[in-house]
Amino acid sequence: MNVTSHGRTAHFRTVTFDAGTRSVQLIEQRLLPHEFKIIGTQDFRETARAITDMVVRGAGAIGATAAYGLAQGALAFRGGDLKKFSTHVETVYQTLAAARPTAVDPINALNAVRREMARGETVAGQQALALAAAEEFASEDVRHCEAIGRHGTKLIRNGMKILTHCNAGWLAFVDIGSATAPLYAAQAQGKKFHVFCDETRPRSQGATLTAWELAQQKISHQIIADNAAGHLMQRGEIDLVIVGSDRVLGRTGEVANKIGTYTKAVLAARHKIPFYVAIPLSTIDWKLKRGLDIPIEERPAAEVLGAWGVNRRGQREYIRVANPTSGARNPGFDVTPAELITGIITPAGIFKPRELMKHRQELGGAN
Amino acid sequence: MNVTSHGRTAHFRTVTFDAGTRSVQLIEQRLLPHEFKIIGTQDFRETARAITDMVVRGAGAIGATAAYGLAQGALAFRGGDLKKFSTHVETVYQTLAAARPTAVDPINALNAVRREMARGETVAGQQALALAAAEEFASEDVRHCEAIGRHGTKLIRNGMKILTHCNAGWLAFVDIGSATAPLYAAQAQGKKFHVFCDETRPRSQGATLTAWELAQQKISHQIIADNAAGHLMQRGEIDLVIVGSDRVLGRTGEVANKIGTYTKAVLAARHKIPFYVAIPLSTIDWKLKRGLDIPIEERPAAEVLGAWGVNRRGQREYIRVANPTSGARNPGFDVTPAELITGIITPAGIFKPRELMKHRQELGGAN
Repeated sequence: MNVTSHGRTAHFRTVTFDAGTRSVQLIEQRLLPHEFKIIGTQDFRETARAITDMVVRGAGAIGATAAYGLAQGALAFRGGDLKKFSTHVETVYQTLAAARPTAVDPINALNAVRREMARGETVAGQQALALAAAEEFASEDVRHCEAIGRHGTKLIRNGMKILTHCNAGWLAFVDIGSATAPLYAAQAQGKKFHVFCDETRPRSQGATLTAWELAQQKISHQIIADNAAGHLMQRGEIDLVIVGSDRVLGRTGEVANKIGTYTKAVLAARHKIPFYVAIPLSTIDWKLKRGLDIPIEERPAAEVLGAWGVNRRGQREYIRVANPTSGARNPGFDVTPAELITGIITPAGIFKPRELMKHRQELGGAN
Repeated sequence: MNVTSHGRTAHFRTVTFDAGTRSVQLIEQRLLPHEFKIIGTQDFRETARAITDMVVRGAGAIGATAAYGLAQGALAFRGGDLKKFSTHVETVYQTLAAARPTAVDPINALNAVRREMARGETVAGQQALALAAAEEFASEDVRHCEAIGRHGTKLIRNGMKILTHCNAGWLAFVDIGSATAPLYAAQAQGKKFHVFCDETRPRSQGATLTAWELAQQKISHQIIADNAAGHLMQRGEIDLVIVGSDRVLGRTGEVANKIGTYTKAVLAARHKIPFYVAIPLSTIDWKLKRGLDIPIEERPAAEVLGAWGVNRRGQREYIRVANPTSGARNPGFDVTPAELITGIITPAGIFKPRELMKHRQELGGAN
């Protein structure tokens, strides 16, 4: 999407590959929203480290990064010995697969690239196919997000006020995003609307990443405390909620997403405000039978006990906000039941959460 | 309540009067939870400033501070001329009344002291009565909170997990607090329980003040992000919610309190978790006919866009968390309808929110 930096506006993707320098180009997301910077990784190990260290985050974005990392690793091989090349590629694969062990997207991406490479009969052929497959993986991510936008924009009418939670924006994908895709599509169609970004404590991805994206894209928006959405709904100031998801259960329609999503869904249901979840097909889990079995990560207490930001001298800093002798509970995600969800926006269309199973073929869940 | 400072534990009130130095002694609440310090105001103007500058906050605490400030001002008068004394006292009254213009408690406190003073026939007599009336005002605040605790503790059983929002603790009163009173009473009875403190963004009074109080009092507790309560309720980890209030409508049972209270009440109702509001009688508004008419203060955007805390070098600092080019909405309070409230805990007993009117006499609402 658009970024204005040093007075110039240009279109960027979150992840790209520079064939000249054979480097994966990443938006250094840890500096956002306070600084916009593109970094280039010099080899596949550095690319893996960028995933581990959260330079890049978000399902689609780390998938594409891993895909490009595999191509980058393959391209670094010198010589024509296919057997040695295969051993080398295996090392690259394992290094990238281990970068974020709980995430499924990098594995899917690596498998897709490796499958495609296997069609090549020479080292050079496999190298070229690797890069082509990585590019295709990234482009498919963009096409899926575009399709989410095409379907989702139908929900947006002129003058609407829309609530978002956390960041399922283009920074989490290669471009466009999932929960933000309907917004960007609606803007492109000339619709006028206003977005409230939940700040999304404790990591504040709404206040930092989503707000930054919307500001860059010149979409009217305001940040609110997570506590404020209920009051705004009560006063008729929210017409629609769109969030992303880390995992949607195909069998039950339950949605795992950033902590606080469930609360917003309960409030929306009380106020009869439509609540939508926007996802790429890879987010659907066809195996798990109940949301209670989704593991909920307990994250570090320090996230709740303080905050990251920029001080008055412009330096990035962590401050302790809470009482120094108190501890914290910090569940990172919650699970929203299907009954609270109006619809799931996917690249294949909008579905009722309890009808995903019926549309399993369309949704790429054949197995 | 108890405070441990420099290795010694002692009992403190939030506000006291030191007759020797004629100074109002206040816990400097702006330094909490990072530093515990008592300051003494040297004259009534400084006392008024302490209210304005939020050295002291909370309905009961600023009421008592104003009462002591009026006595302090009266005691500073030299000579026996009653007429000049009255003029002086009027100046003191107006100065203290203007310190926090929207709050009703300082006015009630000042009127109570002035009414009592009028019984004196000499300057010295009125001065003594002023001090006695201020002491009585403070002690009555404590007795009311004790009574809230006596009634509220009946709701607390061994092993319970209790959610609180914001700070309606002893720091907001002269001692004991309203929402915390049942907790302190239950602790005194030897009950074991655990408290989750909502951090209460954007001003984080739960993470700072309530957590500090509970830590000082050695009550088992953890801070949670405001986003986390829904998930904990869903997993059966919260048994009871107790909050305070800024205004309860006697006619409808609606409760105005810190932003986010309404959200917690909606969640509690969904999970059939009892939701109680603890208040002194002065919080009941017998005039207003509907909650929608309670003015909701829109507070500075900077509160939502950043946070106050202590950096790694131990310095107090404000950091900007949010995207620098984004704005914020910041409603300070919300209104919870009676249907979501299990009961109102008052010094006169626990009442259903819709039955306050029926008990108006008992609740001191005769007029």
